[in-house]
Amino acid sequence: MKDNKVIITAALSGAGTFKQNNPSVPYSPEEFADEAEKSYKAGAAMVHIHARGDDGMATHDIGRIKETHDAIKERVPNLIVNLSSAVGPMATPEQRIAQIVEIKPEMASLNTNSMNYAVADRKSGSIMFEFIFTNTFAMLKEFGEAMRDSGVKPEIEIYDIGGLDNFLLINKQGIFTQPYNLNFVWGTAGGQAFRPGAFITMVNSLPENTVYTTCGIGRDQFPACMQSNILGGHIRVGLEDNTKMPNGELAKGSYEQVEWAANIVRSLGREPATPDEARKIMGLI
Amino acid sequence: MKDNKVIITAALSGAGTFKQNNPSVPYSPEEFADEAEKSYKAGAAMVHIHARGDDGMATHDIGRIKETHDAIKERVPNLIVNLSSAVGPMATPEQRIAQIVEIKPEMASLNTNSMNYAVADRKSGSIMFEFIFTNTFAMLKEFGEAMRDSGVKPEIEIYDIGGLDNFLLINKQGIFTQPYNLNFVWGTAGGQAFRPGAFITMVNSLPENTVYTTCGIGRDQFPACMQSNILGGHIRVGLEDNTKMPNGELAKGSYEQVEWAANIVRSLGREPATPDEARKIMGLI
Amino acid sequence: MKDNKVIITAALSGAGTFKQNNPSVPYSPEEFADEAEKSYKAGAAMVHIHARGDDGMATHDIGRIKETHDAIKERVPNLIVNLSSAVGPMATPEQRIAQIVEIKPEMASLNTNSMNYAVADRKSGSIMFEFIFTNTFAMLKEFGEAMRDSGVKPEIEIYDIGGLDNFLLINKQGIFTQPYNLNFVWGTAGGQAFRPGAFITMVNSLPENTVYTTCGIGRDQFPACMQSNILGGHIRVGLEDNTKMPNGELAKGSYEQVEWAANIVRSLGREPATPDEARKIMGLI
Amino acid sequence: MKDNKVIITAALSGAGTFKQNNPSVPYSPEEFADEAEKSYKAGAAMVHIHARGDDGMATHDIGRIKETHDAIKERVPNLIVNLSSAVGPMATPEQRIAQIVEIKPEMASLNTNSMNYAVADRKSGSIMFEFIFTNTFAMLKEFGEAMRDSGVKPEIEIYDIGGLDNFLLINKQGIFTQPYNLNFVWGTAGGQAFRPGAFITMVNSLPENTVYTTCGIGRDQFPACMQSNILGGHIRVGLEDNTKMPNGELAKGSYEQVEWAANIVRSLGREPATPDEARKIMGLI
Repeated sequence: MKDNKVIITAALSGAGTFKQNNPSVPYSPEEFADEAEKSYKAGAAMVHIHARGDDGMATHDIGRIKETHDAIKERVPNLIVNLSSAVGPMATPEQRIAQIVEIKPEMASLNTNSMNYAVADRKSGSIMFEFIFTNTFAMLKEFGEAMRDSGVKPEIEIYDIGGLDNFLLINKQGIFTQPYNLNFVWGTAGGQAFRPGAFITMVNSLPENTVYTTCGIGRDQFPACMQSNILGGHIRVGLEDNTKMPNGELAKGSYEQVEWAANIVRSLGREPATPDEARKIMGLI
Repeated sequence: MKDNKVIITAALSGAGTFKQNNPSVPYSPEEFADEAEKSYKAGAAMVHIHARGDDGMATHDIGRIKETHDAIKERVPNLIVNLSSAVGPMATPEQRIAQIVEIKPEMASLNTNSMNYAVADRKSGSIMFEFIFTNTFAMLKEFGEAMRDSGVKPEIEIYDIGGLDNFLLINKQGIFTQPYNLNFVWGTAGGQAFRPGAFITMVNSLPENTVYTTCGIGRDQFPACMQSNILGGHIRVGLEDNTKMPNGELAKGSYEQVEWAANIVRSLGREPATPDEARKIMGLI
Repeated sequence: MKDNKVIITAALSGAGTFKQNNPSVPYSPEEFADEAEKSYKAGAAMVHIHARGDDGMATHDIGRIKETHDAIKERVPNLIVNLSSAVGPMATPEQRIAQIVEIKPEMASLNTNSMNYAVADRKSGSIMFEFIFTNTFAMLKEFGEAMRDSGVKPEIEIYDIGGLDNFLLINKQGIFTQPYNLNFVWGTAGGQAFRPGAFITMVNSLPENTVYTTCGIGRDQFPACMQSNILGGHIRVGLEDNTKMPNGELAKGSYEQVEWAANIVRSLGREPATPDEARKIMGLI
Repeated sequence: MKDNKVIITAALSGAGTFKQNNPSVPYSPEEFADEAEKSYKAGAAMVHIHARGDDGMATHDIGRIKETHDAIKERVPNLIVNLSSAVGPMATPEQRIAQIVEIKPEMASLNTNSMNYAVADRKSGSIMFEFIFTNTFAMLKEFGEAMRDSGVKPEIEIYDIGGLDNFLLINKQGIFTQPYNLNFVWGTAGGQAFRPGAFITMVNSLPENTVYTTCGIGRDQFPACMQSNILGGHIRVGLEDNTKMPNGELAKGSYEQVEWAANIVRSLGREPATPDEARKIMGLI
């Protein structure tokens, strides 16, 4: 807990949440810019983006993604934009990395393990929809190299402790540069649920010079983010992960969860990092 | 640690170890019977089997698997035989479960998550070979139902904490009967490495009436099995997981690792379970 | 996390904080009543009390303690008053328990281990003042029996994991009735510092039907209370434990920390328990 | 687990075990020398000693302690002798440290917290005998300075996580020199019981350049020592801690438990350290 500044990321829109779930989920570049600006004003230093088509479906169209990226940068030039390299189950590995190489955002997500990825009913255990989210070792390496060569800092996504081990293994090849930036994701159907003991084990397993943030899906969002704040990590919130507030009401936007995060950060005597402070912490400058 | 009896399983031969690695890896039904008998005499209550062709390659040929299964049962009638439902990367889901339904072993493995599965060099981090080990939620459900309908008790294989969550989710559908039998697998390239803290977290997350054993790949084998003994779990050893003994020499056979396990079990004042004691513990009778 | 209600306790004044440290530390019965009322209005269901003389020194004078107790009950009749059985280093064991038996508060603290108790400089490691806080097994038993016979529900104070073991040992004698109410205290010089891993280990070691709260001394206060909220426990704050707010400023009173706690509780979608809800949870009715 | 050598210590005789408990408990210097020699031959690099009078009672008589110390050194000159600074409940602090300063053993125990110390019946929870084992912060400092000035390396005894915090606090005064040598003691009635989760938390809290060993009282002995072996620590066994073997029979002497420890050490591919290897690891040379 050396640093008093906590990076808050707003994940404005993933592949699985729609306006039907929460009308503030952005589809158009303009809507993304609106949500990004509100989140920035609430204390976010970074936004994480899955671009959408006008119909709301995840897209891997480079033009649309670039348009979305640029709309945000134009509106809030100083905000860090972190693009996803997981642009929907229909995208090929080539399509997933091509948009990153082309657009060259400051950061991009890099996934560490192949896994089941499902929409499930938590009560009955029934699976409404599933696919295999493919992230082979070869892809981890190739995406890592492509990002390095494009000057894009990877955010290493960890859905399970084994994902951390996959990163540690491939990292021996010398692809990644310090500081490493990891994101622990809790509560996807297919990945691990939030457990404080697992979180501690993971933090104790990190290599030197590693920065970590965390996000939780659905009901795991708020406790996982709170736990990260206690352990000395950073926080990611947003409608990609959860459409609601702790009281069960729909969030007015990702920004309302950013306000939640800023409140928690200040509750331990810390402050939300500005984008430039975040750049320094994550080694972007 | 209620029970003073510890079940030792010998995994005689997986899909990745060959006679080139250790000449005691069995290929023929006769060799399987030999290794099973030696393991039984050393204290094993169960053997876990991946049948092989004469060339040593993993096979999903039902005839060959049944011949292997039967050779063991003929030689050591009381031994529990646990067949793998992961019979090599070339087998389809249908082939994987068909052999189980046909042969109806007392137990069979049931995998809980899709994952990268690789042969890697631990020092350099380079990947020699990899494939996606496919175990969708749909398969977890279908395999579970098929085993239930065939009177085969599943051994739930957990390669990552998320695999435990996958089991807990699907279990809500009421497919599995208590006691649940889980195996925590540590150290595959693609799954999680052995960490005592993760082991404790997993044990603390188990539902009531759950029996667990553990195995570790390569260097993780001996410490993981020792940890299970401390926490009150059971132990799986064998050439599938590791070809060597702690001193670095090749194991004379899976049975030498069974002797190792029996020694560790007795070092905490417990005794290896007989097959009938194991049946009682795991709910096979 | 079965219950959506979280009990917030305000420890208005311990033996070690004075008006010099924070002018809102109460000395007189009237001041205690003022602080209790403010804390109640902010969301506290219980106050924990170390009475003081007019000079601010800890007192074991039964009259003064009763006067303090009664002033609070008169002002806020529904509030739960929890009296300390550790009334300063000068009190004999007999004096410590006599006031409890005489006044018969709804709850009283019951300490579980003898330990060093010091005022220390955290930076230099120098010890300004220390004494041995005596709580023998015999006292744990006798105090427990006296409270039982007087209809006072004990709050079992745990300063170290060993204190939990002491309670578990003496509890075998059948002195205590369920639900057990425990308070994990972090960060005294002489007890254990706050560590999330230790907290989890303790929670996993609790007997059935145990309710726990937590408090942290100085800098441990806010993260320990936040951790309890994540794990499903209750929260104690107050000037006894820490005179400041997270931003480093003096708390305006224990009530300001109660507001902090209520905010954290609501941040996970829960609500502060009313005194009557707290009575139900803790088995006081 | 950098080092392949594991230091086995034999604690030949504490203050609480007598010939009535196990006839191999040594009383006379000659008996201590006999037991030390057997332990050394079984793989011990160090013996930990509480000298006894001819009647078996703990003694703080310097002459007797020195005679005992010297008898061992004469018999096995290369063995490390570690004297206790806790020479029975009747000894004053001055008597406890005076014998260390006078005899100047290579190592001596240094206790970190005041605590209840009892003989208890684990089933009924009844306490047969107890006293407060006094180890104030002032004593921790003074004993540490006296050992430093006498060229005696302290073995820091940790009975509870709070004991570790006490050491960390006083260590800020710069009294102790690296490497620090800690012993985690589990299972005294008054200290913490063995829990793997607490062990891991403690190991994760150690400062740089710290060597640790562990011992467990009674039933905690064997699992705690096995856990230390997994985590990369060293092992202390001996009749001071437990009079029996895992099968419930009386140990033939501390040496039989040393044989147990050597077996466990080799079970993970390591070797018992020689005294000179132990000296190098613990910073005695």
